[in-house]
Amino acid sequence: LDYQHVQVPFEITLWIMLASLAKIGFHLYNKLPSVVPESCLLIFVGLIMGGIIYGLNDRSPPVMDSDIFFLYLLPPIVLDAGYFMPSRPFFENIGTILLYAVVGTIWNVFGIGFSLYGICQVKAFRLQDVSLLHNLLFGSLIAAVDPVAVLAVFEEIHVNEKLHILVFGESLLNDAVTVVLYKLFRSFCEMPTIKSVDIFAGVGKFFVVGLGGVLVGLSFGFTAAFTTRFTKDIRVIEPLFVFLYSYLSYLTAEMFHLSGIVAIISCAMGMKRYVEANISLKSHTTVKYFMKMWSSVSDTLIFIFLGVSTIGENHEWNWPYICFTVIFCLVWRALGVLVLTFFVNRFHVNTITSKDQFIIAYGGLRGAICFSLVFLLPDFHRKKLFIAATTVVILFTVFVQGMTIRPLVDLLAVKRKRESAPTVGEQIHIRFLDHLLAGIEDISGHWGQYYWKDKLEYFNSKYLQKILLREYDQPKSSIVLLYEKLERKHAIELAQAGQLGHGLAHPSFLSSDRTVITDQKLEDTPNPDVLDNMQEILARNLYRIRRTGPAYNRHTLPGDSEPTEQAKEILILRHKSL
Amino acid sequence: LDYQHVQVPFEITLWIMLASLAKIGFHLYNKLPSVVPESCLLIFVGLIMGGIIYGLNDRSPPVMDSDIFFLYLLPPIVLDAGYFMPSRPFFENIGTILLYAVVGTIWNVFGIGFSLYGICQVKAFRLQDVSLLHNLLFGSLIAAVDPVAVLAVFEEIHVNEKLHILVFGESLLNDAVTVVLYKLFRSFCEMPTIKSVDIFAGVGKFFVVGLGGVLVGLSFGFTAAFTTRFTKDIRVIEPLFVFLYSYLSYLTAEMFHLSGIVAIISCAMGMKRYVEANISLKSHTTVKYFMKMWSSVSDTLIFIFLGVSTIGENHEWNWPYICFTVIFCLVWRALGVLVLTFFVNRFHVNTITSKDQFIIAYGGLRGAICFSLVFLLPDFHRKKLFIAATTVVILFTVFVQGMTIRPLVDLLAVKRKRESAPTVGEQIHIRFLDHLLAGIEDISGHWGQYYWKDKLEYFNSKYLQKILLREYDQPKSSIVLLYEKLERKHAIELAQAGQLGHGLAHPSFLSSDRTVITDQKLEDTPNPDVLDNMQEILARNLYRIRRTGPAYNRHTLPGDSEPTEQAKEILILRHKSL
Repeated sequence: LDYQHVQVPFEITLWIMLASLAKIGFHLYNKLPSVVPESCLLIFVGLIMGGIIYGLNDRSPPVMDSDIFFLYLLPPIVLDAGYFMPSRPFFENIGTILLYAVVGTIWNVFGIGFSLYGICQVKAFRLQDVSLLHNLLFGSLIAAVDPVAVLAVFEEIHVNEKLHILVFGESLLNDAVTVVLYKLFRSFCEMPTIKSVDIFAGVGKFFVVGLGGVLVGLSFGFTAAFTTRFTKDIRVIEPLFVFLYSYLSYLTAEMFHLSGIVAIISCAMGMKRYVEANISLKSHTTVKYFMKMWSSVSDTLIFIFLGVSTIGENHEWNWPYICFTVIFCLVWRALGVLVLTFFVNRFHVNTITSKDQFIIAYGGLRGAICFSLVFLLPDFHRKKLFIAATTVVILFTVFVQGMTIRPLVDLLAVKRKRESAPTVGEQIHIRFLDHLLAGIEDISGHWGQYYWKDKLEYFNSKYLQKILLREYDQPKSSIVLLYEKLERKHAIELAQAGQLGHGLAHPSFLSSDRTVITDQKLEDTPNPDVLDNMQEILARNLYRIRRTGPAYNRHTLPGDSEPTEQAKEILILRHKSL
Repeated sequence: LDYQHVQVPFEITLWIMLASLAKIGFHLYNKLPSVVPESCLLIFVGLIMGGIIYGLNDRSPPVMDSDIFFLYLLPPIVLDAGYFMPSRPFFENIGTILLYAVVGTIWNVFGIGFSLYGICQVKAFRLQDVSLLHNLLFGSLIAAVDPVAVLAVFEEIHVNEKLHILVFGESLLNDAVTVVLYKLFRSFCEMPTIKSVDIFAGVGKFFVVGLGGVLVGLSFGFTAAFTTRFTKDIRVIEPLFVFLYSYLSYLTAEMFHLSGIVAIISCAMGMKRYVEANISLKSHTTVKYFMKMWSSVSDTLIFIFLGVSTIGENHEWNWPYICFTVIFCLVWRALGVLVLTFFVNRFHVNTITSKDQFIIAYGGLRGAICFSLVFLLPDFHRKKLFIAATTVVILFTVFVQGMTIRPLVDLLAVKRKRESAPTVGEQIHIRFLDHLLAGIEDISGHWGQYYWKDKLEYFNSKYLQKILLREYDQPKSSIVLLYEKLERKHAIELAQAGQLGHGLAHPSFLSSDRTVITDQKLEDTPNPDVLDNMQEILARNLYRIRRTGPAYNRHTLPGDSEPTEQAKEILILRHKSL
């Protein structure tokens, strides 16, 4: 037996296997995931695993390594989030999202930091040795809402699109703020004196870290799109480029101390459109599928490790500090959302309702990013207290808030996501209104979002598409493209259901003349049973075809009608033809 | 700048990126890959990269780590090979393949080892210090044909299926022999005296290593199939299991000193059938695509690293030893193939022609496995000579043999692979003959391959399928399944070509009665231009449908006929209808 030799890949594979099997296990019992979010179940599995390891080895189980988290587990999730980000609601609400992400996070950091410092001044709590800077540092890592946790919970509760993008967009974009504040306070902690210059430099850094991330991401994204222009003869490695370039953008941003999350999101959003046009349909399926798979596994591993790492002896328990941390996290977030939304609503027609505000405040879940950051803290005597407080906040938000948010959404009757995709008619109208509004803004001289969107679209079709797309010689109207997409999707669905071939294989049956059927019969149908069977298949297919035909020209997509209804309609048709 | 932090993933990503870009680069100029095999080009790129690194750093560039090769680069290639192995020709020729792989490899090892020992006895060559055991050890690592190199070259020359499977199957299965002989001689080298018991133990080990690998692989394969029974609600992680279980089978086999290659191949071949039935179509596309992509990248990296590792100062040059190694490799392989084929041909009706024998002998390419094994040798004073000889043999076989094999195949007019897939009619006849032969064998009491195949099929449908397949309640005839598969494939092709929707969307046009068209016209065609356009589309689609219709019932698959021919036929049809 030579375990040493294969240890590293073997253990990694086993962990991934455990994660995947746990996922299968939850889904075998359908009731469980509908009550408890998967993230809670996974942390629970992690806790059990940690307990077993602790019991067997009699020492703390291995803690999730921050490097592994930031370099290997986080990027797939963020890439998936960025690639499948619904760009329209995101850009429509970008102002509000940025306000929450930047001002809201700063508000939370300083609010939590200063009020915890206040708690530390109470002598009875024995916390006088925690300085203001340490409290602010702790505030900077505990304030940020975690995209992984938010995604895990919000994917299951299906709130309306705007609410979802507000919470989720904030959790993604606050990374830039968190990175800056965390690093700023950490370097302040190590400095003997702090000059006002340093503080100004810190403010300047916001822009560098955020915009730098966007710049790095976009440049890698466009390079990726450009590369896929040349992969026509070698389709099989196309999906690779999507992953390689986005990962490189993340690593490069991290290397220059920029926001990796912002970089990978801009990369994904920048390249998506062009890459999709360049690569083959199968490559595209692979990209989508693998991205989902990878992020799902990463997500599972993160929550399991979160559970495993909780068990052990690296905690220092202090009731007041920990309780007040949880309370302040809740209170400051609620206050921040209220105040910011007040200002947002004054400038918008489409306001954020008080129900939505409550869900935004309540959905501020903390997760593995806080956890990794707290382990990255420089060693000082109260680090274990911070670890304990962070763990409790994460478990509280994921378990208590995560489990109660679904009943609350039901109770408050928060507006849900619409179940059906928008119809072709709706899409045409939306696009028409976009053009109309762009025209109005242009005439009135107001440079609003429609004006900029129109300009960007013009720049895109005039320059970018010519460089980045392979087959630009035949520019198609987007409506035609949409129609083609729908058509393809429908045809593939039909093919998968096995409903298509029959209709195609015997076109001569489609003729209403009976004699043709008789001819056909002589040719390849040896007995009347087979013929009946064929006729039945055809009747059903004909019905399907007739049903789906006009649907493309009207405002609805083909729905699944009841089989009995179909049978009735077929009967009526038969009567008519007889 | 914090390069340390991201160094490992950054450099890995950059290497993969280099490999992918090199692949794109070769394919931009279509003429290059048709003359020089890709493997040669990649080694060449590696040599240049190595030269640059050597020039800049003034020390040897990093050598491909054997652990990285065996644990991370080799498994994807072997998995791909096993998963897409054409099982019918493989099992039809399994006896011959095993003969080549086991007896042929042993023949080569001892032949090369003893004759090199003979060369070492010539005083003028100054090689007397290389013992017989060291020569045999060297023989054991240089004798094995390399699957990666064989695959890279044979994929491009399209020889007939039997010839391909003979060379390729041998290169895969000889791993068990190589592992045993290499480890045996290596332990003999370190032993003070060798007893005859040890030699017998070595012979016994053959069976343990080979059959153990098969057993490990099959058990993981069946577990994988069983796991995918339960992934219906969570399609997104289905592809993962295929990769996880096969990788685990490889690692487990390596851990127990069994043949990892044999294990992963048995795993892939064992699970393929059941996994394909259980997982969704999209998952299957992802599995196939990702496997191809991964193996293609691994393959590229291996050849680049092979080039990079060649540059440097770890070679000891000795003309006679190196030249005689190359000569003996060629001669012993040619002799082995001749002798073994003589015996094979005596027991088979379908003999191996002398042209095929030549290609089998000539296609014995060496590659990265030899290279990694020679670096794993224990340190002794002549290791650098062995490294130099191995490098020369690899470069000689890949460059000289790899580049000349295509012209030779053309020159000898070796039977090529048939271009078209077997028709439905052929497949039905093949299956019919299988059953017939199984019956004949059963009656005559001869337990041949058809008998065993029939028994295995019975066991499979009676027990295995019930355990491993999710939806076994409706057993379908394999002909029906084949038909459904063809139908699906065709429908997806049509859908991708965008030819389908029109035909489906306006079924009422299909009626030969003109009045219906007029009705339709009133409904949704506002002007005659659009109508003309639609009629044109329909005419083309109708043609397609008529063409593809009978094709399913006859012996041909739908081909791409010339557009002019189509137009002519449409004209004739029009005339008739008028």
